[in-house]
Parts: sequence; structure tokens; C-alpha cells
Amino acid sequence: MMVQPLAPSYFLLLPAPWEIRMDQTFSYSATIRLTYANDRGMLGKIATAIGEQDGMIGAIDIVSSSGRGITRDVSVNAASAEHVQRIAEHLEAIPGLELQTVSDQVFLKHLGGKIEVVSKTPIKSRDDLSSVYTPGVARVCMAIHEDVESSYNLTIRKNMVAVVSDGSAVLGLGNIGPEAAMPVMEGKAMLFKEFGGVDAFPICIATQDVEEIIATVQRLEPTFGGINLEDISSPRCIEIERRLNETMDIPVFHDDQHGTAIVTLAGLENALRLVQKKLCEVKIVINGAGAAGAAIAKLLQLAGAEHVVVCDREGAIFAGRTTRMNPVKDELAAVTNQAGQQGSLRDVVRGADVFIGVSSPDVLTVDDVKSMASDPIVFAMANPDPEIRPELANGHVAVMATGRSDHPNQINNVLCFPGLFRGVLDVRASEVNDAMKVAAAKAIADIITDDERCSDYIIPSVFDRRVAIAVAKAVAEAAAETGVARRRPKNAGVGL
Amino acid sequence: MMVQPLAPSYFLLLPAPWEIRMDQTFSYSATIRLTYANDRGMLGKIATAIGEQDGMIGAIDIVSSSGRGITRDVSVNAASAEHVQRIAEHLEAIPGLELQTVSDQVFLKHLGGKIEVVSKTPIKSRDDLSSVYTPGVARVCMAIHEDVESSYNLTIRKNMVAVVSDGSAVLGLGNIGPEAAMPVMEGKAMLFKEFGGVDAFPICIATQDVEEIIATVQRLEPTFGGINLEDISSPRCIEIERRLNETMDIPVFHDDQHGTAIVTLAGLENALRLVQKKLCEVKIVINGAGAAGAAIAKLLQLAGAEHVVVCDREGAIFAGRTTRMNPVKDELAAVTNQAGQQGSLRDVVRGADVFIGVSSPDVLTVDDVKSMASDPIVFAMANPDPEIRPELANGHVAVMATGRSDHPNQINNVLCFPGLFRGVLDVRASEVNDAMKVAAAKAIADIITDDERCSDYIIPSVFDRRVAIAVAKAVAEAAAETGVARRRPKNAGVGL
Repeated sequence: MMVQPLAPSYFLLLPAPWEIRMDQTFSYSATIRLTYANDRGMLGKIATAIGEQDGMIGAIDIVSSSGRGITRDVSVNAASAEHVQRIAEHLEAIPGLELQTVSDQVFLKHLGGKIEVVSKTPIKSRDDLSSVYTPGVARVCMAIHEDVESSYNLTIRKNMVAVVSDGSAVLGLGNIGPEAAMPVMEGKAMLFKEFGGVDAFPICIATQDVEEIIATVQRLEPTFGGINLEDISSPRCIEIERRLNETMDIPVFHDDQHGTAIVTLAGLENALRLVQKKLCEVKIVINGAGAAGAAIAKLLQLAGAEHVVVCDREGAIFAGRTTRMNPVKDELAAVTNQAGQQGSLRDVVRGADVFIGVSSPDVLTVDDVKSMASDPIVFAMANPDPEIRPELANGHVAVMATGRSDHPNQINNVLCFPGLFRGVLDVRASEVNDAMKVAAAKAIADIITDDERCSDYIIPSVFDRRVAIAVAKAVAEAAAETGVARRRPKNAGVGL
Repeated sequence: MMVQPLAPSYFLLLPAPWEIRMDQTFSYSATIRLTYANDRGMLGKIATAIGEQDGMIGAIDIVSSSGRGITRDVSVNAASAEHVQRIAEHLEAIPGLELQTVSDQVFLKHLGGKIEVVSKTPIKSRDDLSSVYTPGVARVCMAIHEDVESSYNLTIRKNMVAVVSDGSAVLGLGNIGPEAAMPVMEGKAMLFKEFGGVDAFPICIATQDVEEIIATVQRLEPTFGGINLEDISSPRCIEIERRLNETMDIPVFHDDQHGTAIVTLAGLENALRLVQKKLCEVKIVINGAGAAGAAIAKLLQLAGAEHVVVCDREGAIFAGRTTRMNPVKDELAAVTNQAGQQGSLRDVVRGADVFIGVSSPDVLTVDDVKSMASDPIVFAMANPDPEIRPELANGHVAVMATGRSDHPNQINNVLCFPGLFRGVLDVRASEVNDAMKVAAAKAIADIITDDERCSDYIIPSVFDRRVAIAVAKAVAEAAAETGVARRRPKNAGVGL
């Protein structure tokens, strides 16, 4: 028996609210689908089995009934996914009963998708119909036809971002394909709206060919005000983003690169303030030379870092290295590691002030950390398992950050993209340039005051509503200052 | 001075509800933007001018103010667009005042677009975040990765249709381009939701090349449960639809062809019942051999019509005609006009029982109508001006229908597509086949009872909520009967 999604269900009747008595210990709900011969005592046995495992029954619904048997959906409230699993296994042991599926609350939240498209105004009268559709809409169409720029004001482009993926590098799951990537992109669209007031629509495309991805996204331009690229594998994502930015009139932003870099810079700025070191003076070792590692290296240097060394599995990337290179590493070799350091991660991390990991679990040892300069800063952001476990690093680091929510200092892109796109759309920026990225990082860092800043609080919570407002304002201002803002509102981000 | 959309406005403050006293004669609102030197008496002059023209002032807001002058948005309530125009011209005559823009209520309804993307569940806690995004979402992604079919249950595909256009044949406006087509597609998305409970997202693509359109739509497949093609010029639209249906696993439906044909068949069935003629016996002349005309001819024949002649500008299309032919007309020549009639529209309409126009204004004369068989039926659906004006046909026809809302019997696609896609999505149909189209037409026609049916009421109102429910049920049943339903709900369309 596997915990798996419900088969298409025609009678998915969740328990009515008054049937669920929720309390702290029963916060996890699941629906268990069972089939059995329609035997009078069976429902009693089911209820007893659930009760014996301390589960609480919600609604019991009939899915189908025939001479051969009956299929029911039993809603169970439990303490956790494991608790549900235990109940399910107990039910499976009942003779004559077949357990079909167990759908837990995470799957239930995904049934039918997580977002919907709604009208801003109702269509209840002929007048409504005439103004939003024919014949009234024709005048609006002609106004846009005469001045295409007005589409940014008169259509959803004003506030609509496409979240585009090919499903080639989804979370830590790898190349799982576009259909399987959709739940992530839908979730991202929810976050755009919740934190940035930005409408976002997920587009998962059925090709992993660079040229086809580029052509497809280019053709979506009339519909959107911006493009957020997501979970596209490296180094393809770098070329795709560059080519799209060169050819499109709307901003294109690959969040896995720049969002990660911006939030990393924000956290690092506060960490350095804590240990009273300067970005331009510290030695920074970045482990991981993929899209995120490269973007972090570039953004830190833009912000003033002067001693950055990037490592891959083979060790430091330096000018003149010839093995396992690619165009991304060639560029890193040219612009980082001015001292020309060579050797393994272990070699180059010795004496470093900052370690930033966007690589894989457990590649940094306690001895490595001990070999760093005084007050070492360690950002171990591999997901879900960091480069060094916080419990091992504890006591040997001045500041530690990870990508996880169950440790302090989570480096989470949610801190950046909603506010960044809010600012971008508000000023109709033609691109997201370096000044805007640095401004976004500074805005995130500055949410935490001098009094508040401590080793467990170098980065705000993802639920801190001030973050998106501050990021939007900073990004809008930086866009205006660098000449990429195509309108100049006095109140970018203030609507949040 | 032109009535045109507002320039990007940072302070578009509409009047607060309590400031507007609406009554029958003041149902039209507009915002007039004025700039003038900040002269103390000017606001009084403006108010007086508006009052002299019987306009009513709503809110007055400052857009900007500088040494050189002040810019204000004045909300005006008036009786009509013409009334607003008159007020604006009166204002323009005030010396020292510059009229910037007049934005009427249709434009105001379009500001920022007409639809938005919203989350079905809020993200207020860490638990919420974990179940709709990382880390919880990973299990859902992997379930889809293992069984791609489950994406129809666990993502927005379950209820999401793309409304796709290239902007090449928008309403009666012609090839106005993809940006200008967006307001129509947004309106269509609103109608999908309002009448069918279907989520629809507009995609206007920046190419009019057939191969590029096909490739782009194919790549959107992982995101959607169905494709509604819209306002793509003929004959390209026919090839695009055919090729997409051949290659995609989700249904592709070109509404301008089949939606029009379905609603036409529905109206015709009731019209024939009224005059007590049978579809298989009547002679039907269709004027217009574009995508809609061809689709109507085919669907009528599928439903039993045996005497259909299609005309283009050159006259009847018949087997063996060699001038001004194209692949669409070649097919029509092969399957219609079995009698091999030749000659002009005037020649072939003589003695016909039914005229169906999807062509251009005023091509049918009163003498033509008089030459038809007894109790002639005339569907003059050219938009906005029909093939014969109803006031001319009046008295010479048994039943008349148009595409207009200001005459009885409006043949409007809104009667079809929301319910049709509701049914298609509910049963996850792999295509929209002929049986489903005929079933949809019958369902629309059957809304009107024998008692209700009369020459002014052969087709239900677009606001008749029973229509979409009936269409969804009929389409779902027909899909099941013809083996294209991939799930079998017991209650398709009932949710409406």
C-alpha cells in the first residue's frame, strides 16, 4: 500500500466543517478509500480499527456500490502523516477489505490545482457583457492596435508574470518533466499573489530543447508583463535567460540564479555586520559552479566582494584550468579568484571568512570549518540536506544559514521574487539589472535593525510582510535611477 | 480630442461609491483628465461647464501639481458615450484649459486587465507554505512523475483551458495583432468562468506563422486540460485545429467554427419546428465559405440536412468549379450541393427554405427573400451589420435570427463554449467529436419548450443559466457514448 493521490474521484465529499473537531493533536487529515463486500458488520470493524489506532473518523462517503461490493471514502483525522500510515496499515489487516488509496492533506490541497482564474467584475447584465466583451471590447482592442504600449495598461500584462519551466531541474528532484513540475509552479504563483500582489500563471512547456524553449517564451510576450524562469537545468538556463533578455521587451528573471543570489547577499551583509568584517575584505569560497553558484559569485562581486573563489567537484576554478570546464566556469575563472588559488575545497576554504554552499550534502567537514578564519560564516544551502549539518557546525561558526525552514536563517527565495516583480511591474522596468538586484538585497538585509540582528536572525522571516514592500520600493527606485523604468509611479510597492 | 484610454495613471482614484448618485439617466461614467494653470476660478468654470451640459460631477482628484499648472481627473456621470463627448467638447472650449484624455467606463473596466489569478487556499502559516510549496509539494510532483495522468487530477489541468489567438481575425476588426486581441480573450475567459465554471487563461501569441502557432500550442499541453482556438483567420485556422487535434492529447476546439455551427444548428432546429419542416427535407443556402460557413455546412449535414449549398462571393460552390477555389472550398464542393447547382447567391437562394449568412452586410435583398420557399428562415449573422437588415426582412420571413443583441434570436457562441468545455473537462474527453457537437446543439434547442417557442424565441438568452448545465450534460453523455470520455462522472455539469 502506498500513500498516493486519489484516483479520479466523482464523489470527493470532504467532511462538512461541523463534522471535524480539530485540535492540536489531530491537525492532519487524510481520506482513505476502501472496498469490501457489502457486509453488515464491516463498517463497525473499520471504525473500531481506526479508533484502536487513535484516529478520529470524519465523514464516510459512498464512492460506488454494486453487487460485488461497496467502495467508501473514509475521512480520518490524525496527528501526522505517519499516524495516517499506521491507521492505514491497521485497516489493511482486516480480512475482506481492500485498501485502495490514502490521500493525505497535501494531496487533498492539490486536487484540481491550487490556483484559479477569476473575473475582476461580474457579468450579470447585458451591459456588463457589452463592456467586457462584444461589442464594447472592440474600442479597447482598437486603442491597443493603435498604441501597443497601452496593452500594459488595458490588459492583464500590467500585473501578470509567467512562471515558466521545462521541468528539467525541479527542486532537488531532478528532471521530472513539465507535468510533474506544475505543482511547484502553481505554488510559486500563489506566493507571487500572496506576498507581492502579482498575478502569476504557471507555464510548463513540453520541450527541453533550448531553441524551442526560447522560441516558445518569445511568442508568449503579448500576454505577459514579465517572465520568471524556474527550475531549468544549468547551463541551459543561463543561455535561455540571456537570449530571452536580449530579444524580449519585458523583463526575464531566472529566480534560481538571481533570486538565490539576492537573498544570499542579503543574509551575508547582515552576517558580516555581526562579525564586523567588510565584504570587500573577506575571502569567500562558493562551493557549486552551477547557475546559482555563478550568479552568487557575480552578485557578491558587484556588491563589493574582492576575494571570491568558486569550487566545483574538482576544486577551485582558476584562470588556466583546463579540466571539466564549460562556458559558465570559463567566465568564473576569468572574473573570480584573482589570486589564482588552486586545490580542493578543503585547500581553499582554509583561512576563508565565508563558505557558501549551493552543492550537495556533507561536503564540508568540521575540520574544514575549524580551518577557516576567525568568526567563520557558513551558508550551507544544499536542499534538503546542507553541506554541513547545523548540529555539527554548531560551536564552530559565528553565523550559520541553510535553505531549511527548521533551522534559523533560512535563505529562501520567497523573500525576493514577489517584491522584486512588484517593483518591476509598478515601474514597467525593461529588465532586472544589477543595480536592482543589489538594491533588493540591501532592502531585505535592512529589514533587520542593529538591535535585532544576532547570529540566529540575519534574514527576515518569509512571513514578514515588510519585506516585499521594501524590496518593491528599492527595486523601483533602482530601476528609475538606472534608466530602465518606463513609468514613474510615486508609490511603487505601496499597494501591498 | 479623441476618446482614448488613460495614459498610465498613478493616481487613478475613482469616485467613492457614496459620491456617485446613479439613476437611469446617469448610468454612464467617464474620467476626464484636465490640465490648467492653477488659477483660483478655474475649478468653478469646469464645474459650471459640466453642469451646463447636464453632466454630474463625481470625484475630483489631483494627478500632479507643479509651478506650471495642475492636472486633475474629473469623474463625470452622464447618460451615454455621446453625452460624455458633448461635455468634453464643452470643457475644451474653456480658455487656458487643456483636455488630456477622456476615459469612459468601458476603458475603465479594462484598466489592468479583466481577470486575475488567485489562490484557492491562503498561505498564512508555515504549514500552509509547506503543503502548497516546498517541501510538501515534492511528493505531489513525484506522484505525477510516476503517473502523468494524475496531472489531470492534481494540477490546474483538471479545469483549465487556454484561449489561444494570434490576433489575425479579431471580431470584425481584422488582423489587429496579438496585443490588441487580448481584451477579447480576457473577456472570453470571464465568460468561461461565469457561465461554465471553467478556468480559462488567454494566450495571445506573437506569430502568425502556421507552423510556429502549432509548435507553440503543442508545447503548452502540460499546463492545460483543453485548448480553445479563437479569432485565427481562415483557412489557416482549419489546418491549425486539425493538426493540433491530431497531435495533442487534450481536446482542441476552434470556437469560431464549431461554436458558431452548434448554436446555428440549435436555432435552426427550433425555427424548423415552428414552420413544421424537416431538416432532411429543406434546402439550405449558406452564404460565406470561410471557416464558420464550412463548419456550419458540415454540422448541418451531420445532423441530417441533405440539401445544402454554400456560396462565396462568386456564387454557388459545386463539384467541378475551378475559379477561386481553395482546399476548404474543394471539400465543400465534394460533400455539399449534391444537385450541382450553379449560379449567383440570388440564383440559388430562389426556392430555398433557409438562408444562413456568415458573410457581409446587405448581400441579401428583400426580393431574394421573396423568392424563397414559403415560410422562409433567415439567419443573417454578419457582425455588426447583418446580410439583410431585420426591419427590411420583417413581414417577409417566418423566422429571422442575427448575431446582434438588439434583435430577437441572437446566435451567440456564449450559449455553447462554457457548457461544452464544462462537459469536456468533467469527462476528460480526448476530443470534441461530431456527436458531441450535435448533442450540444440539441441541448441548447431543447431549453425552449413547445409552448414557449415562437418566431421571436427560437434560441435561449445568453443569461439563461440552464443552458450551460444542459450542454455540459449532453456533451459528457455523448463523449461517453462515443468512447472519448476518459472518466465517467455521474454528475457532469451538475456543479454549475
